[in-house]
Amino acid sequence: MLELMDETAVTASGRTLADLPTPALVLDRDRMDRNLARLAQRMERFGVTLRPHLKTAKSVDAARRIHPDGPGPITVSTLAEAEYFAREGGYTDITYAVGLDPTKAPRAVALCLAGVDLKVVLDTPEQAAALGEAARKGGAAPSVLIEIDCDGHRGGLEPDHPGLVPLARAIEDAGLTLAGVLTHAGASYDLRDPEALADAAENERLAVVQAAETLRAAGFACPMVSVGSTPTSHFARDLTGVTEVRAGVYMFFDLVMHGVGVCTTDDIAVSVLSTVIGHKPDKGWILVDAGWMAMSRDRGTASQPVDQGYGLVCDIDGVPFEDLIVDQANQEHGILALRKGSTANRPDLPVGTRVRILPNHACATGAQHEAYNVVAGGDEVVAVWPRMRGW
Amino acid sequence: MLELMDETAVTASGRTLADLPTPALVLDRDRMDRNLARLAQRMERFGVTLRPHLKTAKSVDAARRIHPDGPGPITVSTLAEAEYFAREGGYTDITYAVGLDPTKAPRAVALCLAGVDLKVVLDTPEQAAALGEAARKGGAAPSVLIEIDCDGHRGGLEPDHPGLVPLARAIEDAGLTLAGVLTHAGASYDLRDPEALADAAENERLAVVQAAETLRAAGFACPMVSVGSTPTSHFARDLTGVTEVRAGVYMFFDLVMHGVGVCTTDDIAVSVLSTVIGHKPDKGWILVDAGWMAMSRDRGTASQPVDQGYGLVCDIDGVPFEDLIVDQANQEHGILALRKGSTANRPDLPVGTRVRILPNHACATGAQHEAYNVVAGGDEVVAVWPRMRGW
Repeated sequence: MLELMDETAVTASGRTLADLPTPALVLDRDRMDRNLARLAQRMERFGVTLRPHLKTAKSVDAARRIHPDGPGPITVSTLAEAEYFAREGGYTDITYAVGLDPTKAPRAVALCLAGVDLKVVLDTPEQAAALGEAARKGGAAPSVLIEIDCDGHRGGLEPDHPGLVPLARAIEDAGLTLAGVLTHAGASYDLRDPEALADAAENERLAVVQAAETLRAAGFACPMVSVGSTPTSHFARDLTGVTEVRAGVYMFFDLVMHGVGVCTTDDIAVSVLSTVIGHKPDKGWILVDAGWMAMSRDRGTASQPVDQGYGLVCDIDGVPFEDLIVDQANQEHGILALRKGSTANRPDLPVGTRVRILPNHACATGAQHEAYNVVAGGDEVVAVWPRMRGW
Repeated sequence: MLELMDETAVTASGRTLADLPTPALVLDRDRMDRNLARLAQRMERFGVTLRPHLKTAKSVDAARRIHPDGPGPITVSTLAEAEYFAREGGYTDITYAVGLDPTKAPRAVALCLAGVDLKVVLDTPEQAAALGEAARKGGAAPSVLIEIDCDGHRGGLEPDHPGLVPLARAIEDAGLTLAGVLTHAGASYDLRDPEALADAAENERLAVVQAAETLRAAGFACPMVSVGSTPTSHFARDLTGVTEVRAGVYMFFDLVMHGVGVCTTDDIAVSVLSTVIGHKPDKGWILVDAGWMAMSRDRGTASQPVDQGYGLVCDIDGVPFEDLIVDQANQEHGILALRKGSTANRPDLPVGTRVRILPNHACATGAQHEAYNVVAGGDEVVAVWPRMRGW
């Protein structure tokens, strides 16, 4: 076939934000390091282990900014992530924090056989039985965390659920080890008042501590008591009884977290570099080459007081333009416009101008890209960090 | 590091929908072939060339179901797609249908040097000048289509814009060849009445035909007159003066197109295979392992009369359950529930049950996956077709 360079595989060595092909995902390493230090210090003050959730970054290079070497602890959202982080980074202390699909049990067992200290999450005796059978056949077993539902957000047993102790028995009857309990305050993403966020953190803490006490009273050791969400981890007043905290998006932050009140826009470490490709002056539109394929379809700020469209537009140095957002998105077109009701002046951005766009949701925007173009204190790309994907 | 198989790279040979790791993207090749034949026959009756838009499929294997060999014609949405389809499939008759970023001009020229007959789209003299300069330096040149705005959807000049003929002159002054005019009836996605859709198609036709006549009256040949959108291509009453039609999502269809009225749910060729991982009986929830990472964040049916959530749930054979949709989505969790107000019975789907979920938007859901697991008249995966990505 034709002799054509695979441009997407070209490394960015020597490139700057002015000559990188767009759209491109940019990671400000200094901002990320600052975010990492902030939560690490906070957890240190509480004397609680931080088990970062790597579903946001999906990059072993990013993970190394937290844990330069294995074994972790880390959290993942898919078995493919567990395999990737174990294989590429030697991270072996892994919690897979999504309720176990029984058909994935043999694959979880294979991870243990390869030397991974895997913790899986479940909330039914059926899952325990399937895992027990796979473990017997495979000759190794993940330990098990019971998922606790602290706020009706998705799965798990409520802390006072009568099935809690029977489930712990079913886990041991299946020949498995109960490692503890785990919850996630997913409903905290809908809050924005510091007091309400602190209350959500306390509610999250009480849910797992109560479940752990119930299990201990019934004779189970329940050594791990795991909570986690970026908002609650930053607003918790007390973590008594909790042994570890999980958080993911705190590494990068995003506009949703800004709307919740966890970070400023200056803390947001990821952005999408984009180029102006046209104008519609009568409509007040500036067209750029970052559509939803580059930004994702996430509209997480739509339900917040300040709707950021598909992203907040900054200049190439990362300084936001007042009220300029990605108002609409087609697959490869972004339409920039001033926020409704804004009295700001629309900046003059000729065709060819480069902008950087802060995303609503770092997890979703990151997933649209192959790699991070890493900058640190300048406009030169100092590293390219690949992302993993798939299941 | 650890010895671990890369499960995501395992081929699906011999696998069936019952044992494929989930979530997974499934393509029903028979449905796709039927969709392809439907529009091909329609265009044949009009005597108009069909130039499929491969931004939906992003797969050379899918492209070969339309054009078994090169040169095309095809449409793409990124230069990376142009490079991929030229390199992998020998497709050289390519229209790149997104307004040209001037900084990408050298890369477009490189495609021409490699033997690609590339058509690029623009609507300003600045873009023409940048492309002309890159062509002079590079020694080859794409030909140029002027983007026409038929419905205020995004970029382009209105058909009666006074800048139209001056732009054509600027293109020739830059040493480039004007190939013709191109428009896209993007606003047709918001319609659902057959008469309104036929009117939108007629409006789209008239816009480019008028622009072409203006250019011809000023002495420009304007051989190509290109329209395109899946809704208008299926509802056009007349294509007089049009030389080619572009459409992309028609290959697979999706719930948005079903809501527009272009297809039935039985025509939708792509779905996401998923496994039940839990229940919340008090809330009426069934939890599955397909969250927004597998479905995308696209909520295109939210503005239609029937909101399909994040997707319509079918059994493993692809038969929809009445009113069962993905009501909410976290990164790796989908929450199935009956549509609000439904009187249907919630099906009994034990943990471990497999379902198939029809997507709102095939372009967005496809982009979340590495490959299509292809089925044809059965539950066996007969092929795995990789997808390309990036820019």
